[in-house]
Parts: sequence; C-alpha cells; structure tokens
Amino acid sequence: MSRDPFRFEGDHILLLDQTLLPDREETIEIRDARAMADAISRLAVRGAPAIGIAAALALAVEATRDGSAPGKLERLEDAGRLLVASRPTAVNLAWAVDRVLGAARRALAKDADLAACVRDEALAIWDEDRAASRAMAEHGASLFPTQTRFLTHCNTGALATGGGGTALAVLLELHRRRPGSIEVWATETRPLLQGARLTAWELREAGVPFRLIADSAAAHTILRGGIEGVLVGADRIARNGDAANKIGTLGLALAASAAGIPFVVVAPTSTVDPRIPDGAEIAVEARAAEEITSIRGMRLAPTGIRAENPAFDVTPARWIGAIVTERGVHRGPAYDLRDLG
Amino acid sequence: MSRDPFRFEGDHILLLDQTLLPDREETIEIRDARAMADAISRLAVRGAPAIGIAAALALAVEATRDGSAPGKLERLEDAGRLLVASRPTAVNLAWAVDRVLGAARRALAKDADLAACVRDEALAIWDEDRAASRAMAEHGASLFPTQTRFLTHCNTGALATGGGGTALAVLLELHRRRPGSIEVWATETRPLLQGARLTAWELREAGVPFRLIADSAAAHTILRGGIEGVLVGADRIARNGDAANKIGTLGLALAASAAGIPFVVVAPTSTVDPRIPDGAEIAVEARAAEEITSIRGMRLAPTGIRAENPAFDVTPARWIGAIVTERGVHRGPAYDLRDLG
Repeated sequence: MSRDPFRFEGDHILLLDQTLLPDREETIEIRDARAMADAISRLAVRGAPAIGIAAALALAVEATRDGSAPGKLERLEDAGRLLVASRPTAVNLAWAVDRVLGAARRALAKDADLAACVRDEALAIWDEDRAASRAMAEHGASLFPTQTRFLTHCNTGALATGGGGTALAVLLELHRRRPGSIEVWATETRPLLQGARLTAWELREAGVPFRLIADSAAAHTILRGGIEGVLVGADRIARNGDAANKIGTLGLALAASAAGIPFVVVAPTSTVDPRIPDGAEIAVEARAAEEITSIRGMRLAPTGIRAENPAFDVTPARWIGAIVTERGVHRGPAYDLRDLG
Repeated sequence: MSRDPFRFEGDHILLLDQTLLPDREETIEIRDARAMADAISRLAVRGAPAIGIAAALALAVEATRDGSAPGKLERLEDAGRLLVASRPTAVNLAWAVDRVLGAARRALAKDADLAACVRDEALAIWDEDRAASRAMAEHGASLFPTQTRFLTHCNTGALATGGGGTALAVLLELHRRRPGSIEVWATETRPLLQGARLTAWELREAGVPFRLIADSAAAHTILRGGIEGVLVGADRIARNGDAANKIGTLGLALAASAAGIPFVVVAPTSTVDPRIPDGAEIAVEARAAEEITSIRGMRLAPTGIRAENPAFDVTPARWIGAIVTERGVHRGPAYDLRDLG
C-alpha cells in the first residue's frame, strides 16, 4: 500500500490502520459507514482532511447498496450523522458529509444515478485535497526562503490528508527545494504519539534530518534551540482565525510568541468554519482517560485515579502569525476568514 | 518503608527504587558512593533536595570504611567528585557534598572522629531539609488564601526531598488547611513520568482530589480550565531568579503568564547557586534518546531515528511570580538572591 491513508475500491475501502504504525502496516476492509465511523473514532484514520475524505468515501460505498433512490438518500443521511458524530472537533468531517449529501439530493432531484453522483463527489473532494496539499506546500514554503530549523507537532503529512499533507507538506517542499539544509524537530505528541509513530516515519522515509522530542521539551527547544518557525495543522478554524488543533498546539504558539518566531497554521479552507465567530464556540473532544493512564495497553499511573484527556486546544488568532490555505497566505493577527469557509 | 525516599543504617543506606513505582515498592541496599552515584544517575532517587541528602548519606557510609583519617578524606573527595558528576544540573548535590567534605576537613584539622563528624553533617543536612519543607509549605500556602485549583509538574513531594517536599508540600498544606476544597491537575511528565507515577501516587495516598493530564494539555488547562496557580520545584536557581527545573516547566510559566495567574517556584535555599548570575550559565543535562523513543522498554518510534532529551529547561525570572524558600516568599520579577545561596 502506498503512503495514502486509504484506497477506494468501489464497493469497499482499504484503510491503513494508523494505530499500528510504525510497527505494522495492516489494512482494514471498510464495507459500510458504521465501520468507517468506528475507524475514525479510534483513530485508525486521523487528520482533519483525511477523515473528511474517508467519510465521503464511506458514503460512496453506502450508495452502492441496493434500494430505491429515496430510500438510499435516507440511508445516506443516517450514515452521515453517524460519521459526523464519530469525532466532534474537526469540521472537515461535517463539511465533506454535507457536500456528498448535497450531491445525492441533486441526483435524486434530477433523477440521475445517485451512486455515481455520490462517488464522483467523494472523489472530487479527494482530488481537491490533493491539489490543496500541493498549493499549501508552495504557499507555505514561500514564507521561509532562508530559514532552516523548524518545529512541528502531531502528524500533518500524507497520512493525515488525501494528498501530501498540510504543515508537513510545507516542510517536505522546503526539503525538496533546499535538500540537506532543512532540520525538523518533531514532538512525540502524547497521548497517542502521532509524532513519534507517524511523523517520524514519514520524515525518515523522506530523508529529512529530524529529531524527536518530548512535548514538554518544545518550549525549551523553541526558546533556546534556534528554531526559526513552528508549523502546525488545524482541525477547525473560526472566522476570526482562532484555530483548534491537536492538544499541545497552544503551548507551542505561546513559546513561538515569546521567542519572536513565526507560528504558522497550515490547513485547507475546508477547515474554516464560517458559522463560528471565534474559538470560544469550538467544542473540544474529551477522549478516554485510559489514553493518559496507559500507553499501548501498558499501565503508567496508579490505579483508581482520574485523568483528563482533551484531544484539542484552541489557539487564539493573536498568537498565530499566518494561516496558509490552498488559496494563499492569510496574515494575522486580525483575521477575517468569512469568505474562506 | 515509609514515604521517605531512603533510610540511613550507619554502614549502608536503604533506598526506595523510584523507577519501579507505582507498580513495585522495592528497596536497594547502597554500600558505597559508586552505588549511590549510579542510583542517582538512573533516577532511582531523584528530586534536587533528595539527591543532595542521598549524596551526603553516601559519604557518611564511605567514612565508616577502614583507613587513616587523611586517606579517608582523600577517598571522600574522590567519592564526592563521582557523586557530583552523577547529575549535572541540580546544585543541591554539589552543595551537600561540599558541606560534608568541609565537615571532614574540619574533623581532620582538629583530630576529631572523622566518620562521626561526616555522619552528623549528613544527618544535619537531612534535618534541615525536613524543617525547610515545613517552612516552605507554610510560606507557600500563605500565598493562596482562597484559591482552590492548582497545576503542578513532575514530582516535588516527599519522594523528592528529605522532608515533605517543595511545591507538592505547599499543595498538601493547603489541603490540610481546607480539606475538600483543593483540586490539583498533575502533568504526567514525560519522558520518565514522575507525575503519572509518583505525584499521582502521593496525591492519591494523601486523599487530595486530582486529575492527571498529558504535558501537552497544560496550556489548555491553565488558559481554559480555571487554574488559579501553578507550583513547581527547581533544580538550580541563578542569582537573578532564573530557575532550572524539569523539562516542561518553561512552557507552564509561559501559559501562566498568558493566563495572568501566579507561577510559583518552591525550593530550599540550597537550590540557589550564588556563583551564577543568570540562567544562561546553567548546564542542562542531556539524557539518553531511548527515554524518548521508548517507554519502560517498549519502543514507541521507528528505528534508526534521532531524539533529543534535555532533562531540564530554564525559566527566566521575568516569568516567575514568586520564589518560595524556607526563609520566606521572594517576589519577582526582579530578584536578588545573592544572599540566599
């Protein structure tokens, strides 16, 4: 299987189970929306753009099942609700489901082939995401013509999108332009270690020199380690530029601000939620305490204690130097992204 | 064995192996300085005050071995160098070794019982640390007459000192004064999980309501979780108040500053190093990459990659609201601690 997180096979989807990386590369066969919702919920596929595409593909699979067109639409709407509920913070998921359901409704209205229309819309979302990755990589790289030392968080590479990625795609583009000169510090990203498992894997494969660090070492590395730029992705961006992203992002923004270096969010416009004015209205997913008290099944903490596990935090726009989308570079701190969503 | 990290038995020391907590409570018999240096280096005993006392007790054990007084002094000086080198950042280690060697030299000069003088000095250091813990707990608690929600990092309790602790002793004192009203958020403290393993254990035993969080969740918890004070320990404090402490502390100080809540360092005066004017001169211990790429023997990251593992960071005095020592509360941001060391 290629570096793509999934492969569409018409009536099913082959999904790379990212929870097993880097130890094992195993694929799961997804044959309905319920199985995809489960895969999204347990992070077998993750990354805001990737889960949007995965949900769209799951609806395309659902649409191939037998039934009348109105019955199919109803089933797709049920499936869409299930998929949207599988992770509450990333807006790409709801955005992709809405797009596919819109295509299904239009097909029904004009008596077209519903399954074909749904499939075409899902594949169009995927194609657009590939093109968006390429555009973001170009726009983002143009921000750093001479800088060489970067820090990134979580995984925002090919595994997190349908294309080359978001923040990591920018770093790979910089490496392509100036091979041998770019160095990356990647945070391990507790609790689920997307940095240690996935970003380290992608950077090693791409031959980019990098060091893995503990999340807690980021402020020290930024303030005393000569980092020249911090690049991260996003899961939902409010109209004013406040950005929800993997837990830990907010601390990186504070450190970058204290160090006086650029803090850049890289995300496709599908991540912008024009319905919400600012980050206060972004719901932060609370995940299971066991992700904190244990690691891959091994208990780390005493029994009988409580843990809190917010999966995201919200970085206020005033600490974001620029937001890079496929449409270009949007500079802060006063953002107006209402036309981007 | 009590909550004390060690017990002095005259010709040997019984040391609680903190690397095995909370799963197992095992003690190690320490019969010379080399064994203690090894125990300090691999963090079987840790916490700046505790390793100072542990080193002093190891010298007391060394002093009981046969030999002429001048020969003993030479051996103690060698042992002292070995102990001081076992961890480079905490200054309490060098401070305690210096005190014990001073007592040995005075004993030699006046022809007194060298072993007895060394033992008395080591036990005096321990006694003073117990008294310092009590005083710090009182002074620190007085800073928070009404606040109830606190965040702490690493382990700064009884396991980290010879007494009740530093920052954690303040929180336990607040709990004693206002039982049922104090809540603590404790960071897990990667890579070696002193928060998840040791602080969680001490807070559970003390009956203080608390939640464990990932290190990366601290900024979110401080800025959106209603935290009213952040309390941490220190391993070395420069004359101007810059403080080295467990990696991750710097990020907590930045978040507390952004939230406008007090960030308080609690440490005995033995932690102040009057020889260094500011934090730029504090050497930060770089520990093994394996602590990042694996956890308790289980590999987390792909093979063939690099990791960086700074054990400490240095928080500039301008982000420290107050430093609490056994002598009282020293308020920032312009510290002059030259008389404290």
